[in-house]
Amino acid sequence: MNLSHIEHIGIAVNSIEEAKSYFEDVLGLKCYTTEKVTDQKVKTAFFKIGKTKIELLEATSEDSPIAKFIAKKGQGIHHIAFAADDVNASLKEAEEKGIKLIDKQSRKGAEGLNIGFLHPKSTFGVLTELCGTK
Amino acid sequence: MNLSHIEHIGIAVNSIEEAKSYFEDVLGLKCYTTEKVTDQKVKTAFFKIGKTKIELLEATSEDSPIAKFIAKKGQGIHHIAFAADDVNASLKEAEEKGIKLIDKQSRKGAEGLNIGFLHPKSTFGVLTELCGTK
Repeated sequence: MNLSHIEHIGIAVNSIEEAKSYFEDVLGLKCYTTEKVTDQKVKTAFFKIGKTKIELLEATSEDSPIAKFIAKKGQGIHHIAFAADDVNASLKEAEEKGIKLIDKQSRKGAEGLNIGFLHPKSTFGVLTELCGTK
Repeated sequence: MNLSHIEHIGIAVNSIEEAKSYFEDVLGLKCYTTEKVTDQKVKTAFFKIGKTKIELLEATSEDSPIAKFIAKKGQGIHHIAFAADDVNASLKEAEEKGIKLIDKQSRKGAEGLNIGFLHPKSTFGVLTELCGTK
């Protein structure tokens, strides 16, 4: 598969409002957009550093995957996303190489990108997203 | 503080030997160096994607911070590191803004860089490293 850079790092937080001032006032990054992703039951806030985005994730309901993650592991890094030239082809290649997939086909994620997740059981505990325009 | 990009993402693994084939054969990244960091009791393996490095971390003894991390949380993302123009000035600024530090002064890390860590209690659960040549 052809991956060009770390597209974003997803961080699960209790409250975007609280976390935002750390990323802005301490690290000096700027929040350039916020978005609700209804099917994931999250609110997101995006910051950019180099070519990589920091995506803060806040649950909008108790059965959100982010609420469950925080209940189990606490706030912290939730996933990393690699920019892929072709998300579906990359998912297929990963599966052929024995990787367990969460998504067999890409779906729409934040910022309108095609996204698909590899299962952390196959990726040394790292919840791994592939994303791109194709 | 002035941060330019994600310098690296540190991933705690049980065995670099086992994890390496996933990063090389599935994700298509190349391991360009391995290194022992004696004072951290770890072996490291580095891959590069865009301007960001993936740093695999394997404990070399049971009292290594990485062995303790895996015992508590399992394999997975251990920390993220931001490239800072001046590590000591950035640590000082963070402390003045109320962030708890692990390192009050920078020290030498992998690849000969100056590094310093912010405490995850102040950074929404994300163990955060600042690193750079200065």
